Amino acid sequence: MNLIISGTNRKHSNSIKVAKFYQKELSKRGEEFEILSLEDLPENIIATDLYGKRSEAFAEIQQKVSEAKKFVFIIPEYNGSYPGVLKIFIDACSFPASFFHKKAALVGVSTGKYGNIRGVDHFTGVCNYMRMHVLPLKIHIPLIQNELNNEHEFHDPISLKFIMEQIEEIVRF
Amino acid sequence: MNLIISGTNRKHSNSIKVAKFYQKELSKRGEEFEILSLEDLPENIIATDLYGKRSEAFAEIQQKVSEAKKFVFIIPEYNGSYPGVLKIFIDACSFPASFFHKKAALVGVSTGKYGNIRGVDHFTGVCNYMRMHVLPLKIHIPLIQNELNNEHEFHDPISLKFIMEQIEEIVRF
Amino acid sequence: MNLIISGTNRKHSNSIKVAKFYQKELSKRGEEFEILSLEDLPENIIATDLYGKRSEAFAEIQQKVSEAKKFVFIIPEYNGSYPGVLKIFIDACSFPASFFHKKAALVGVSTGKYGNIRGVDHFTGVCNYMRMHVLPLKIHIPLIQNELNNEHEFHDPISLKFIMEQIEEIVRF
Amino acid sequence: MNLIISGTNRKHSNSIKVAKFYQKELSKRGEEFEILSLEDLPENIIATDLYGKRSEAFAEIQQKVSEAKKFVFIIPEYNGSYPGVLKIFIDACSFPASFFHKKAALVGVSTGKYGNIRGVDHFTGVCNYMRMHVLPLKIHIPLIQNELNNEHEFHDPISLKFIMEQIEEIVRF
Repeated sequence: MNLIISGTNRKHSNSIKVAKFYQKELSKRGEEFEILSLEDLPENIIATDLYGKRSEAFAEIQQKVSEAKKFVFIIPEYNGSYPGVLKIFIDACSFPASFFHKKAALVGVSTGKYGNIRGVDHFTGVCNYMRMHVLPLKIHIPLIQNELNNEHEFHDPISLKFIMEQIEEIVRF
Repeated sequence: MNLIISGTNRKHSNSIKVAKFYQKELSKRGEEFEILSLEDLPENIIATDLYGKRSEAFAEIQQKVSEAKKFVFIIPEYNGSYPGVLKIFIDACSFPASFFHKKAALVGVSTGKYGNIRGVDHFTGVCNYMRMHVLPLKIHIPLIQNELNNEHEFHDPISLKFIMEQIEEIVRF
Repeated sequence: MNLIISGTNRKHSNSIKVAKFYQKELSKRGEEFEILSLEDLPENIIATDLYGKRSEAFAEIQQKVSEAKKFVFIIPEYNGSYPGVLKIFIDACSFPASFFHKKAALVGVSTGKYGNIRGVDHFTGVCNYMRMHVLPLKIHIPLIQNELNNEHEFHDPISLKFIMEQIEEIVRF
Repeated sequence: MNLIISGTNRKHSNSIKVAKFYQKELSKRGEEFEILSLEDLPENIIATDLYGKRSEAFAEIQQKVSEAKKFVFIIPEYNGSYPGVLKIFIDACSFPASFFHKKAALVGVSTGKYGNIRGVDHFTGVCNYMRMHVLPLKIHIPLIQNELNNEHEFHDPISLKFIMEQIEEIVRF
């Protein structure tokens, strides 16, 4: 199963809402993606799953990652870049089984004005380093708190237009 | 006390050796820096010290960070960028007490050929976002395993020349 | 005299208007900056002023650059980064007389939504490589066509607040 | 015909030698690429071919660009990033006929130690912005003056291994 990574372990995050929106829209087009929320990482991951160690809890996550061929990363802006917890997840994953020659679509979200342009660019560097193909259309959603309505759907027609264009590319990609 | 951040929690890392070298050379010039190794982060930091939470263990670290005015960051290359654990540390630190309008010197290290150019550039973006002044001379040490001799000192004259130039700038900066 | 670089050779650009606004506000605080518009570059600069060559036309520009100690760069977004013509200007300038250990403040402008975050970050890398100190507060002005009123002044209070904060830093820096 | 862009207008550049090496190796695998050297840009391109203007000289270049589906960019390091003249070329090209949804392979070269990591990363941002698919394996060739033998061929086995791997990907991509 392909994976949508909700790139934070913050509870009740906007990222998880965005992940669910992508999951639903992809499913409508016949593409089934599972959501992997970084809320599910082991709490002591920095001690148990780096530098060749592997916990039982992460082993299950690793198996899902190894099986996926396409990834959608939802990347909130923390301190002007991607979250540390997202990079910890990447650093914990096995190489090259996890990401080598697989495909990635990137979605930046922020509560501020710029939609995590910088964090998505930094993460592109990481993805390319791991030899992932990155879909060129990257989505940047600023002021995410205003973008989602009560049903956790996007309502701004311009945001929706670009998101749908990206989703079409994920399907064809 | 100013701080040298050894940017990984890996045991017996090259980063900690580089940190000690900088500490000794800075001390010779009358600048006392304490080393903060990310080995000392709480193991469950992703659960205890993000999103407004604060553990007793990290509170002590936070106090050191709040008091420092200058930082030297030793940044190993993990997956083509800075380590996740270094960004977790940044994400856990209080804003703006930790870094706002303070000064940063950056040192990239890698076992590969390029000295973590990309990771140091990404970290510059993070530092500037937090409104730190970043010293323009950044050091990139590739093939770190060959650079340090048995006394954990640099012996290559070209590496030494640039490191000493950076250290002079840290003193004057 | 210090310099404000209007980073495009497009006629009637928004960048030149932003440059004039900065010049006026800096002057009010006793800091005299001259504007250097890239409209004034020699038209055949790529043939006359790279790789050690020097035209009379550029020699005058070079002299101004060599004398300045502080620079404000106004950087419009062209194809997702800084303009080629701005980098040509940098590539034509003498090293190290032009920029080494001097100071730079960066202002990104775009007609689109994101205020040239990426281009300003790329240009930070260039500035640091040339060993310039870059002011950490970088300004990003999206939708520039809406930001300037008929007198070419900013009217949005939030944009003004950050611009004024940056201008204070340029003075103190 | 697909294109290899030699990303500088410097005479007798290493970039053109690298371009010829790629052309020959690609041809051996049945992929015919034409070399477009930026030496062939109009000398006054900054006056004649930006902001909607078009010279006869560039119109021929534009036609080749519009027809190509795959690009190999050879990118020397100038002032810590890609050359201004390469970005001028990009800024002069028509949008979207030139690059939209086409494919790019990137090769960084430098006379210094780091193989233009930063410039290739910056150029990845430009390519993705223009909606190009960028091949994840990017080649970085430091100390280019030592890499090419008298026949302008690479002789270092490690460099050759990665170059050949990239060439295979260009073929399959």
